[in-house]
Amino acid sequence: MHIESEPTRQLQRAATAARDAARLLARTPAAGRDAGLRAMAAAVRARAPEILAANAADLAASAASAAFRDRLALNPARLEAIAAGLEAVAGLPDPLARDLGRWTRPNGLAISRIPAPIGVIGMIYESRPNVGADAAAICLKSGNAVILRGGSDSVRSATALNAAITDGLRSAGLPEAAVQIAPGTDRAYVAAMLGAVGMIDLIIPRGGKSLVERVQREARVPVLAHAEGLCHTYVHADADPDMARKVLANAKMRRTGICAATETLLIDRTIAPSLLPLLVADLRALDCTFRADPAARTIVPDLPAATADDFNTEWHDAILSIAVVDGVETALTHIAQHGSGHTDAIITNDPTAARQFLQGIDSAVALWNASTQFCDGGEFGFGAEIGIATGRLHARGPVGPDQLTTYRYIVEGTGQVRP
Amino acid sequence: MHIESEPTRQLQRAATAARDAARLLARTPAAGRDAGLRAMAAAVRARAPEILAANAADLAASAASAAFRDRLALNPARLEAIAAGLEAVAGLPDPLARDLGRWTRPNGLAISRIPAPIGVIGMIYESRPNVGADAAAICLKSGNAVILRGGSDSVRSATALNAAITDGLRSAGLPEAAVQIAPGTDRAYVAAMLGAVGMIDLIIPRGGKSLVERVQREARVPVLAHAEGLCHTYVHADADPDMARKVLANAKMRRTGICAATETLLIDRTIAPSLLPLLVADLRALDCTFRADPAARTIVPDLPAATADDFNTEWHDAILSIAVVDGVETALTHIAQHGSGHTDAIITNDPTAARQFLQGIDSAVALWNASTQFCDGGEFGFGAEIGIATGRLHARGPVGPDQLTTYRYIVEGTGQVRP
Repeated sequence: MHIESEPTRQLQRAATAARDAARLLARTPAAGRDAGLRAMAAAVRARAPEILAANAADLAASAASAAFRDRLALNPARLEAIAAGLEAVAGLPDPLARDLGRWTRPNGLAISRIPAPIGVIGMIYESRPNVGADAAAICLKSGNAVILRGGSDSVRSATALNAAITDGLRSAGLPEAAVQIAPGTDRAYVAAMLGAVGMIDLIIPRGGKSLVERVQREARVPVLAHAEGLCHTYVHADADPDMARKVLANAKMRRTGICAATETLLIDRTIAPSLLPLLVADLRALDCTFRADPAARTIVPDLPAATADDFNTEWHDAILSIAVVDGVETALTHIAQHGSGHTDAIITNDPTAARQFLQGIDSAVALWNASTQFCDGGEFGFGAEIGIATGRLHARGPVGPDQLTTYRYIVEGTGQVRP
Repeated sequence: MHIESEPTRQLQRAATAARDAARLLARTPAAGRDAGLRAMAAAVRARAPEILAANAADLAASAASAAFRDRLALNPARLEAIAAGLEAVAGLPDPLARDLGRWTRPNGLAISRIPAPIGVIGMIYESRPNVGADAAAICLKSGNAVILRGGSDSVRSATALNAAITDGLRSAGLPEAAVQIAPGTDRAYVAAMLGAVGMIDLIIPRGGKSLVERVQREARVPVLAHAEGLCHTYVHADADPDMARKVLANAKMRRTGICAATETLLIDRTIAPSLLPLLVADLRALDCTFRADPAARTIVPDLPAATADDFNTEWHDAILSIAVVDGVETALTHIAQHGSGHTDAIITNDPTAARQFLQGIDSAVALWNASTQFCDGGEFGFGAEIGIATGRLHARGPVGPDQLTTYRYIVEGTGQVRP
């Protein structure tokens, strides 16, 4: 006899309720889903004292690092940002109202392709209450039910936030099971989520590399994940030097820990003697350090030497790898060999070189004369994002409400039969 | 020391060559890819004698069933159909030239979303030489490299066909590694394909349920699969009786073995007394048998009784399950409970009922007054199909060249930095 564990049974119950909720959400007009988001925002504000108290209890119980605790911490301003975020998502266009195409066949069948929710989403993330709230907002907006499994240190905060979210759903007449949280902190519940084929349609992990890699390794359910962001800025021979300096400093140093931060500078051999010293000086002034190839070290001798593996390293830090290249093709070859297909930029005033780069690259986002840090759902105009997808299937780049939909076909006939 | 098996090493070599080929294909204009397809067709015709001889040797060595051997068998007409199919795919619009959207942000960044090949596809299928040729055509059309692993009984045919395909690629100046076949018949090669994370971007299994289920169970690489097609035709109270008779007979009996064949008839209680006897008589004349619920057996007493599991069974045969329902909502509930989200149809003259059904259903294809057997890439106007996807991610329904693409973003700036 096969004995199912209690977490597996809990997940099955949650997923069954989520499926029923998802069916209802798929048929709920945009006004109803948006009303739910606004009611959730109101409930978050109304329950602010108890959410903050729960968060204080989480913080008191957590022995984690200061940076970790900062991501866990809520305060009135952060809670208001969560509520405002819910309202902002309510104000976005309806992802389920997009026109995905319509055509008529010679036999008279009228075919239309329409957006549809994916169904039941499983979100696995770290101890960051706002990530759960954002996920709930984007999933509800796109008509999906979601099961949230945040980090163990945030369980009290997540429970209090979820009570508010449930209030909002209830007061808007939406199914409470549309947003559910994992009961407790048993890691077996995560395993049950990852194996819930047919019950959960998509798992989205959001967090550090080890979390994402575990999910990708163990999941039997499809996964939409951010894996790695080894992004390049390529300064072409015809780059405007001032633009290159300004854009590179932003691409590397605006925030070094995000996935779209530039990790490697590629610079053309002809412009390097004049420009590389300036780029290095700019970044040194911002406390950036370097790993440089021999050609770059010939130009700026005090640059530390890069090891073979440095060009495969996502620093997530104020460190820049530097390689000198000989034009667009060698830059593309370097990126194909060392990049992660995330985001890469060329800086040039030469439209032909720019076209060659933009056409020849295979990354989710390719930029011309702009900072790699623009790879972001908000900056793309998506209004909200649940993460950046680095796989090649379903969605690539910033994942907003539109990307949490699938499609289906409606075929209207007049009695046609297939010959 | 970790010892890799020879099939794993073979797959790694093949996948590395396929990746290089895919990079070239992604940059090859449509005219070049189409020229390759036409050259492949010419080479198939030129090498027809040796392909047919190889196929005869496969057939002579195979101890499989007659139906299996029929799918394996080639003859001059079938080989010409393969060549013509390659040319037909060459004539389709370029999947990489579609416009997927373009917008400008308030900061002046011009963002465009463009199609891109997925990369390296792994195709696992049964001993059907034409399936491999179709897959090669659709993959090349969409700029993807493909590794083909057909059934063991077809290895000589596949090798001879691949020699022709390689001839065609070479004569068109395309990389030969764009289409590769598995060396030999070692099943460990399939396992290596399923585990080739980062080397193969997508696995497409095509064949029987056990093949597809094994792939779905074991693959670490994303899978685009046809799992199950438990399709319904719902005859609404306001159906035109003649249309219902004609459409149901086609939906059930045109071909009973395809995934879009209707397996279950749902019929409204009010119309059943007059119409069900006619529907049953029509299908009996076509040698169809039945599994009916008690209400249907009250109307046509000699119908065999359905068991509880019959409504969950994809017959793939001349058998129809029948249930009497009470309007659109109960039909939708039945389909949600028993269906597989593949293809479902309503027959009615009432537009309100049709809307309610088409909006309320969650299947890849929902039809109004047409046969479920229209769920097909050719019938949808896709020109060619590699299968039907029953999952919810990336693609649903018929999978043609467009569905074997992903997308990427190009962002054009004038030196913007992110605030």
